[in-house]
Amino acid sequence: VDKQISPAVIRRMPRYYRYLTELLEEGTERISSGELSRRMKVTASQIRQDLNNFGEFGQQGYGYNVQYLHDEIGKILGIDHTHNMIIIGSGHLGQALANYSNFKKRGFEVVALFDVDPALKGKKSGGVEIHMMEELDEFVKSTPVHVAALTLPKAYAREAAEHVIALGIKAIWNFAHMEMDLPEDVTIESVHLSDSLMHLSYLITDKERQS
Amino acid sequence: VDKQISPAVIRRMPRYYRYLTELLEEGTERISSGELSRRMKVTASQIRQDLNNFGEFGQQGYGYNVQYLHDEIGKILGIDHTHNMIIIGSGHLGQALANYSNFKKRGFEVVALFDVDPALKGKKSGGVEIHMMEELDEFVKSTPVHVAALTLPKAYAREAAEHVIALGIKAIWNFAHMEMDLPEDVTIESVHLSDSLMHLSYLITDKERQS
Repeated sequence: VDKQISPAVIRRMPRYYRYLTELLEEGTERISSGELSRRMKVTASQIRQDLNNFGEFGQQGYGYNVQYLHDEIGKILGIDHTHNMIIIGSGHLGQALANYSNFKKRGFEVVALFDVDPALKGKKSGGVEIHMMEELDEFVKSTPVHVAALTLPKAYAREAAEHVIALGIKAIWNFAHMEMDLPEDVTIESVHLSDSLMHLSYLITDKERQS
Repeated sequence: VDKQISPAVIRRMPRYYRYLTELLEEGTERISSGELSRRMKVTASQIRQDLNNFGEFGQQGYGYNVQYLHDEIGKILGIDHTHNMIIIGSGHLGQALANYSNFKKRGFEVVALFDVDPALKGKKSGGVEIHMMEELDEFVKSTPVHVAALTLPKAYAREAAEHVIALGIKAIWNFAHMEMDLPEDVTIESVHLSDSLMHLSYLITDKERQS
């Protein structure tokens, strides 16, 4: 993929992947762009435009081969190979992430959790051991870590981010309300749950205003 | 607000609110659009365009009054009044949500959690009681509930959604991998964590391809 693809298109690809995975689970081998459009509630032309960014996927009169399209989008998303992930913050959210079996299917393998609470030391969550923060440096030396999920309070998130970056980890999945200037070569993806909740609040309020 | 505002603009408003809340916490009383632009890493003209959808906020040569803009965006988002929320699914994710103090500041009050696991019956999470699912109907009769957060596995999420809709709850905050046809008057906001993780995977992979 050489040309610049718009961030909005990229943002939609996981949703395509999710639908195609469902189709595979249902045993669907091929699907017309019209049918995919009805399921995903986007126009068929939007689907064609989005996918054309990455090559020729559909065939006139045949539609899409579900397995092929699924696998190709998987490659585009890079989930055809495995990223080792550590989770820093082993509270409810951190443990929720450790227990998501879906992440492994998406190429993310949780290799360790970390926390500062001695009560959690040596316990397991989702089959993965909880380590103390002072073991982090040693752990990263012996095990390749590609991603650090930050599921700790805002007050500690920045320090944790700086720590993992100093250890050479280049990707952060951030759940804290924190914005920070990162080195060029570090990637961050943030999940802001309260933004989502505020958006829901807007939708509710907007409906009330209209009724 | 009478005219149609684009969903993309609406999606950005929580982020404005978040930044303005930070500015207030720092004691900043006013801010120029240039300075707000630098902090938020969006152009000053984008900020002006976004805010113009909702009225006149800035003043030439003065900038924005932080408290006023914060409060007005709060009204737009509808977080100036309280929504009662129940959480269905009291695993790690449900309990993580129950423990977020930020949600209360955003006008969402968790009034109960629900689960089917008898081991959780009567326990509390984030100060809120965990009820059994069979108590749901009775609970909703006696307590106004505006939002149901669904933090249970996909296999049960659809049934739970239908259940809360039948009880008259009009808004769903959905964490399951579920797409469903909803009645016109029901609002849904979904958080797809694995979409976010796949997006991170893309960003990592794209960087690797470029280097």
